[in-house]
Amino acid sequence: MVFTVMLSLPAASRDGHATAFHDALFTAVSAVCVTGLTTVSTALHWSFFGQLVILTGIFVGGLGILTLASLMSLMVSKRLGVRGKLIAQEAMNAGRLGEVGTLLRIVISTSVAIEAALALVMAPRFLVLGETLPQAIWHAAFYSISAFNNAGFTPHSDGVVPYEADLWILVPLMVGGFIGSLGFPVLMVLLATGFRFRKWTLHAKLTVQVSLLLLAAGAVLWGAMEWTNPATIGNMDVGDKITHSIFASVMTRSLGFNLVDMNSMHSSTMMLTDALMFVGGGSASTAGGIKVTTLAVMFLAIVAEARGDNDVKIYGRTIPQGTMRVAISVIMMGATLVMIATGLLLAISGQSLDRVLFETISAFATVGLSTGLSAELPPSGVYVLCAMMFFGRVGSITLAAALALRQRRQLYHYPEERPIIG
Amino acid sequence: MVFTVMLSLPAASRDGHATAFHDALFTAVSAVCVTGLTTVSTALHWSFFGQLVILTGIFVGGLGILTLASLMSLMVSKRLGVRGKLIAQEAMNAGRLGEVGTLLRIVISTSVAIEAALALVMAPRFLVLGETLPQAIWHAAFYSISAFNNAGFTPHSDGVVPYEADLWILVPLMVGGFIGSLGFPVLMVLLATGFRFRKWTLHAKLTVQVSLLLLAAGAVLWGAMEWTNPATIGNMDVGDKITHSIFASVMTRSLGFNLVDMNSMHSSTMMLTDALMFVGGGSASTAGGIKVTTLAVMFLAIVAEARGDNDVKIYGRTIPQGTMRVAISVIMMGATLVMIATGLLLAISGQSLDRVLFETISAFATVGLSTGLSAELPPSGVYVLCAMMFFGRVGSITLAAALALRQRRQLYHYPEERPIIG
Ligand SMILES: [K+]
Ligand SMILES: [K+]
Repeated sequence: MVFTVMLSLPAASRDGHATAFHDALFTAVSAVCVTGLTTVSTALHWSFFGQLVILTGIFVGGLGILTLASLMSLMVSKRLGVRGKLIAQEAMNAGRLGEVGTLLRIVISTSVAIEAALALVMAPRFLVLGETLPQAIWHAAFYSISAFNNAGFTPHSDGVVPYEADLWILVPLMVGGFIGSLGFPVLMVLLATGFRFRKWTLHAKLTVQVSLLLLAAGAVLWGAMEWTNPATIGNMDVGDKITHSIFASVMTRSLGFNLVDMNSMHSSTMMLTDALMFVGGGSASTAGGIKVTTLAVMFLAIVAEARGDNDVKIYGRTIPQGTMRVAISVIMMGATLVMIATGLLLAISGQSLDRVLFETISAFATVGLSTGLSAELPPSGVYVLCAMMFFGRVGSITLAAALALRQRRQLYHYPEERPIIG
Repeated sequence: MVFTVMLSLPAASRDGHATAFHDALFTAVSAVCVTGLTTVSTALHWSFFGQLVILTGIFVGGLGILTLASLMSLMVSKRLGVRGKLIAQEAMNAGRLGEVGTLLRIVISTSVAIEAALALVMAPRFLVLGETLPQAIWHAAFYSISAFNNAGFTPHSDGVVPYEADLWILVPLMVGGFIGSLGFPVLMVLLATGFRFRKWTLHAKLTVQVSLLLLAAGAVLWGAMEWTNPATIGNMDVGDKITHSIFASVMTRSLGFNLVDMNSMHSSTMMLTDALMFVGGGSASTAGGIKVTTLAVMFLAIVAEARGDNDVKIYGRTIPQGTMRVAISVIMMGATLVMIATGLLLAISGQSLDRVLFETISAFATVGLSTGLSAELPPSGVYVLCAMMFFGRVGSITLAAALALRQRRQLYHYPEERPIIG
């Protein structure tokens, strides 16, 4: 709310006039939820002060999410009994956590260290491109914070499109966004155990594997589907086509920068992007969506079913039934939210389903890729998208934590009876 | 395949020319899978012989599905151990089943009895409307078989639209379709125990309750969303509006007749219809979709999770974990199939997402409501829809049965470890 008020101030806008309430609210929510959708151009509408407010919103929002989610994971792990606690401590053992203060300190120091490293890589490039030193530092800082927190805001009016062949900029963005999307528990495991895969927690193994798999599959499919589309990458040389495909796939994990116009993509590519965005990134990360581990657990349950196993097993571990039910709840909640919001926005905007669905999922998964619909919506539609960003951001985290905390013991069981399925 | 060949014959078409292979194949698949989607008008394109072939296809297809699905449910129940077997026998106790012959006989006699009753109700109405006796009998037989088997084929070129205010016709159609959509196991329970709800099997309780719930919710929402749409029911009086709403809701369960043009509905209403069609009817019925019990089991799992229960409980029974995993598999398979087919058809047709998604889900759930896209598609698109109808029809039944049969005992368990979800 503070950010909304500050963005409403005349000083925040470039032309010195106060910004309309729904635009200020939308931008503030978008920044704090690290979404990156905008109703007004970040570069053209906001003054330096306004952009600073946005960047602070991203920084605070990103830290808040990381801390909140990590805290909740800790709380959940405290309820797991002795063995569960040991495993959870293993996941977090890098810092011998247990207190909020310690956790917060580790989150901040890790985030700032990664962001500083990214900024150091990018700043020289902006200097080379002819910017002044303060400008270069400002842009490098903005992009590194925006990338690591998966925010997708950009201080240039054309976004990252001018750098579409500039790997010096694109690679740090992709690496920062990807690392950020893995989530804090995974980063801790990586820092503590390095690349010794066998020592990782189950959560880290699943998150990294599924993220890489989605990244590769997304890039290959995106490239194949857009290969000959002259409105996007059809007329580029092979190297640029591959860069674009990989970049597009990373962005759905939920960074949200774009190199091509989303409206120019084939409808089928938009659907692919919808699906990738809906899945999103890792748990307790700045990425949104239903999370890659949720998808992994569902997939493993199906594999177990197909093999006729009673337990859902992977890497010598059994995934408990309760976890599976949390996964079902998160997916169903996500699908229901997206369906309701899409229905509302269809009625409000009168736009085609593919654009509305794209924007809704982009907001739900806090991705920020846009067909430009956000900027065209009347205030009522803007509020719907605000609500989607908010619920998409904190909804699944709190839902999952609340559910996991409510597990209770039973003293008796009813007899089993199975309804016929399918 | 026999039906495809027979429909390809010159004698089957009204103008005496052989029908193109993909049209004949599509119509045959649509009839045998009791879908009701068409690429050519049933009334205008086909001769009486052709229509008879279609009706025979519906009759044989409907019986085949009922028998196959009931058989598989029986096979599954045989694997359940003594208690499970007792419960399954209770579900089927009307006929002391156990042999294919007996089962088939019961299925046929029940189907024919219900179809005859429906035809007896409708035939006089067609006579009153000025048809000759043979015509009236033919139409009554066609509609009753088409309705009970949830096929949605119609022998009139305008479908049931001329009868849009004729409750004498609409009510038998709705009742027949709804009874057919409950599925054979539920019908048996109803015949055996009447309306004594407490004596029903869990499967019957869930199926009837969820079906009625979806029916009511669908009618209310459909009515509310289209109430003021002049292209559909906006200009009608209140009674007709209500009739239309209830009819539209029943049709998604998956009969597939239509009173209003699907293209005239709001996009949000199309999405509502998509969702209702995707769920479909009861297990081991002629209705398609992922089935109401699948939805019920998922919902109960979420409720159990929200309440912190370890067991998924309802009506004093526990739903086993295996059943939940079958439900997950069926839903994921359905969603994946719909997504792939929608992507393919978007690329093939270049049409808007809402129409393509609608037609794909209509084919998958063998509903047969149509925006007319089927008739516009090139042969490659027609084959995609054929495949969807086929997999939608037999896929979920066989998948669920195969999965349920593959349950196996385990001698050891791995330690539990829970990845972070959401
Ligand atoms: K984002
Ligand atoms: K049908």
